[in-house]
Amino acid sequence: MINASAAGAIRAARAAGPRIGRVLAARHGVLGALGEDLVDTAGWSDDDLSRLAQAPGGAFGSCRFDLDALADNPAQYDRLFDVFAAHRIGAFLYNGGNGSMETVAKISAAARARAYPLRAIGVPKTVDNDLEGSDCSPGFGSAAKYLATSMLEAGLDLAAMSSRRGRVFVMEVMGRNAGWLAAATALAAQGPDQAPHLILVPEVPFDEVAFLAEVRLVVERIGYCAVTVAEGLKRADGSLVMEQGQDAGGHIQLGGAGQCIARLVGERLGYKYHWSIPDYLQRAAGHWRSATDHAQALAVGEAAVGYALKGRDGVMPAIRRLSDRPYRWDIQVVDVAAIANLERRLPAGFLRADGLHVSAEGLRHLRPLIEGELPPTTLGGLPDYRLPALPMVPRLLPPYPA
Amino acid sequence: MINASAAGAIRAARAAGPRIGRVLAARHGVLGALGEDLVDTAGWSDDDLSRLAQAPGGAFGSCRFDLDALADNPAQYDRLFDVFAAHRIGAFLYNGGNGSMETVAKISAAARARAYPLRAIGVPKTVDNDLEGSDCSPGFGSAAKYLATSMLEAGLDLAAMSSRRGRVFVMEVMGRNAGWLAAATALAAQGPDQAPHLILVPEVPFDEVAFLAEVRLVVERIGYCAVTVAEGLKRADGSLVMEQGQDAGGHIQLGGAGQCIARLVGERLGYKYHWSIPDYLQRAAGHWRSATDHAQALAVGEAAVGYALKGRDGVMPAIRRLSDRPYRWDIQVVDVAAIANLERRLPAGFLRADGLHVSAEGLRHLRPLIEGELPPTTLGGLPDYRLPALPMVPRLLPPYPA
Repeated sequence: MINASAAGAIRAARAAGPRIGRVLAARHGVLGALGEDLVDTAGWSDDDLSRLAQAPGGAFGSCRFDLDALADNPAQYDRLFDVFAAHRIGAFLYNGGNGSMETVAKISAAARARAYPLRAIGVPKTVDNDLEGSDCSPGFGSAAKYLATSMLEAGLDLAAMSSRRGRVFVMEVMGRNAGWLAAATALAAQGPDQAPHLILVPEVPFDEVAFLAEVRLVVERIGYCAVTVAEGLKRADGSLVMEQGQDAGGHIQLGGAGQCIARLVGERLGYKYHWSIPDYLQRAAGHWRSATDHAQALAVGEAAVGYALKGRDGVMPAIRRLSDRPYRWDIQVVDVAAIANLERRLPAGFLRADGLHVSAEGLRHLRPLIEGELPPTTLGGLPDYRLPALPMVPRLLPPYPA
Repeated sequence: MINASAAGAIRAARAAGPRIGRVLAARHGVLGALGEDLVDTAGWSDDDLSRLAQAPGGAFGSCRFDLDALADNPAQYDRLFDVFAAHRIGAFLYNGGNGSMETVAKISAAARARAYPLRAIGVPKTVDNDLEGSDCSPGFGSAAKYLATSMLEAGLDLAAMSSRRGRVFVMEVMGRNAGWLAAATALAAQGPDQAPHLILVPEVPFDEVAFLAEVRLVVERIGYCAVTVAEGLKRADGSLVMEQGQDAGGHIQLGGAGQCIARLVGERLGYKYHWSIPDYLQRAAGHWRSATDHAQALAVGEAAVGYALKGRDGVMPAIRRLSDRPYRWDIQVVDVAAIANLERRLPAGFLRADGLHVSAEGLRHLRPLIEGELPPTTLGGLPDYRLPALPMVPRLLPPYPA
């Protein structure tokens, strides 16, 4: 959805007329801004923007890089504003989660400090859905739809099989500290005793005894059990479940939480087990997007340009929920400094009392976010994600780092 | 696709008029036939059959169960034909792969031996695509489409990231002895240097040195490398790569081939690594089916009923390829005894000379099988796989086993 927001922003900028001269994109986020590694998006046609909007990954590249504090490294900011000035950049739009909003806040503050006329605007995006200030974040709804669909489908496969031994399927989903994606798989169950039967989230300390007892109950009732586990599942002492096994030499066996949970069930209860790790697939599944999510991704991209044109700075367009059913939402402005580097976890009320599944309130909240389909245009049976390469903007400054 | 073939067969039987009285389904394959565990499909409307045709899993349940040899266990066959006679069953359609075709051959031979008037017909289905006698098998094209799409999407995600260290993504796909699904991920690459960069199939003994050298070449050229590995990848001595690691106590560390390959790259080359294991997701992805595959699944189900009406016995409708481009195919009859329990592997000509990717010939063969989209009907953002429960056929015989 990062690409959809980019498409929304580029379209809005093109529609804004002569007040916006060019829309440049930095390669790999702020690293490209520092490195003067910029491309001009004018080379993409309207058709290209439509393909951009459906493409996974980040067409301009991404990074995991935090600017230093201004006081610690003023030279870094000098360079950044040299690049901005050299290319006459008046607005800086940055797409990402908590860390990216911190970057926006830092750049906004640095611009004010040096009286550089910049509009720094954050654009929310995170499959983890852990950004504060927004009812949900673009990217989450589509990953949630993909995972709920995957659990529904794998659950039917599991149900069809016959075996005298019980059988367990575990799907490990992203979420180091927040269980939003794990919780969303609860939407897969369209009736009682349908997958997923148990959901393990990082917000609830893993209680092995209670978990195994629940698995046994489900298997004794229907013969099988499907479990969703968030990668960041932790024990009461804060240790990660994925660091479970130790071999004779005391080495931690590296294995995902899904594998650990599946093996635990196999070893303790004697059931057959399978585990799935969608990994990147869950955040890149452009072939099965939520139309709701896509509309929100476009809208925050467009709104960010609107804020820049209105002279707003240090803000982010956020999704505000107006009603659950019918689902209605709009965009409101949020101060990035107020939400940067916070982490929004699942509210306790979204979980069942025993912490092993999602409550009716949680389902009501999550349901609209996965709604609507948006089949991609295809080429030869595959989504058509082809995009022409964009020309590099000629460099005007010395290399960085020197 | 097993459900699509069932829908095709039920529709054809309904269209056949009074010659076919009822279409019963055995729960969990031949286990249900032995156990007199039968349901009457008359309870499903045309709309239900449309939903059946898009649903993953097997709506009547599946099994992994082989009949004994007739000479070893004649009582088992006595029971089977008691059930057939009690319910006036004149045609037996069995959907599956190599083992299922062996079951059809055994039942056909047993019927002839006792002069029971039965038409035993196999219906091909296997995501592994390892059934002899058919150009491809229903189920394969959709799993191939899902995996090629997943590799395309994960490859874009991988390409977008920035890191100084090389990074490797490994996707483990099904295929214990045949690399068809692994090979199909080659379709994801729409240009040079696009994922997957390397494909490891069970037909080619794993050569660690050659593999690591290739990974290094790719990473040094573009910064990252995406690898597909079949779960059944083996070394030259026949041992499975998934049984790679041994801890200090000499215990084999159980881990999938994907995990082993990813760790190997990390340990030997120092790259960052991620691995994905779609597991059941790849064979249950009703949300992203190949229209070609679906049409073939319906066609073999319909053809099986046609064969039964024509009095054929011990046969299977198979897909015959008439041309690659445009892709044209028809159905031909194949003797199940001739193909039962064979295993169709990737032809050497479908692989690149070094065995680490797919050849142009292989791509030409695979390409049409994933073509065409067939979006599922949905409910609340998820595919609508709901089906009403079917009534059990009243039992007429004593329990089995007694």
